[in-house]
Amino acid sequence: MVDILHKIATKAPLEALYQAVATRAGVAGWWTAETTGDSQVGGSLLFRFTTKGVEVGTIEVKVLELAPNKRVLWQVTGGPQEWLGTTISFELKQEGEFCVLLFRHQGWKEPVEFMHHCSTKWAMFLMSLKELVETGKGRPSPDDVKIDDWN
Amino acid sequence: MVDILHKIATKAPLEALYQAVATRAGVAGWWTAETTGDSQVGGSLLFRFTTKGVEVGTIEVKVLELAPNKRVLWQVTGGPQEWLGTTISFELKQEGEFCVLLFRHQGWKEPVEFMHHCSTKWAMFLMSLKELVETGKGRPSPDDVKIDDWN
Repeated sequence: MVDILHKIATKAPLEALYQAVATRAGVAGWWTAETTGDSQVGGSLLFRFTTKGVEVGTIEVKVLELAPNKRVLWQVTGGPQEWLGTTISFELKQEGEFCVLLFRHQGWKEPVEFMHHCSTKWAMFLMSLKELVETGKGRPSPDDVKIDDWN
Repeated sequence: MVDILHKIATKAPLEALYQAVATRAGVAGWWTAETTGDSQVGGSLLFRFTTKGVEVGTIEVKVLELAPNKRVLWQVTGGPQEWLGTTISFELKQEGEFCVLLFRHQGWKEPVEFMHHCSTKWAMFLMSLKELVETGKGRPSPDDVKIDDWN
């Protein structure tokens, strides 16, 4: 088992950071604009990614945990083979004047090339999240930062 | 043992990407402007990081392997406790019109918060490397992208 780990921090309010990871509208502002579904515990969220109008992938997660201003936990129930069964968590905490977000995409079976790609993409999306809570505008798909031949 | 993995790709020439990770001047263009030492196999490179003119850290690596246009391998011999003994590798390959770089910072003992931070920072530095080979100008420290309360 191998994990993708990241950290960002912001001086934006903890509540804003939490809303950005815990709600459908929040996630649509930094990961993919095409986010649908129910973000309550037990609900499922569907994320659709397109490039030049063409669908390049979808991901479905089940919301396992919502601890206000503390933690959001998803289980991946649909999407690329390598993502199935993995978990994605956002852990939040206040540290002085900063709100810290620790991100973990855990349970990958193998450190395949696709995992290297996803690790770098997650960093870009988390910077998009930081931008969203700091400026009101993130860079969700399809306007996300391109990193490689897989986009 | 836990690893940081990343991937970027560029349409810039493979040789340019290799020079950027295999030479002192190259690394100074995307990681830290304050890069000194000898980048030949067996040599040591010293990287100094400053914030507002104040030194915030140094890292020393020994160059273990240089395979032209294919691979560069470093062993960390000085720096933060958590980095000691870890290895950093850059694996390059041509895929159609893209040059792909697979990055691995391997051998971390524990998935500590500092590792989350370094994972996101490496992504920013690799995007700086991509920018360097594509435009001639990267974003090395001290002008690097800030991600959190640790910079």
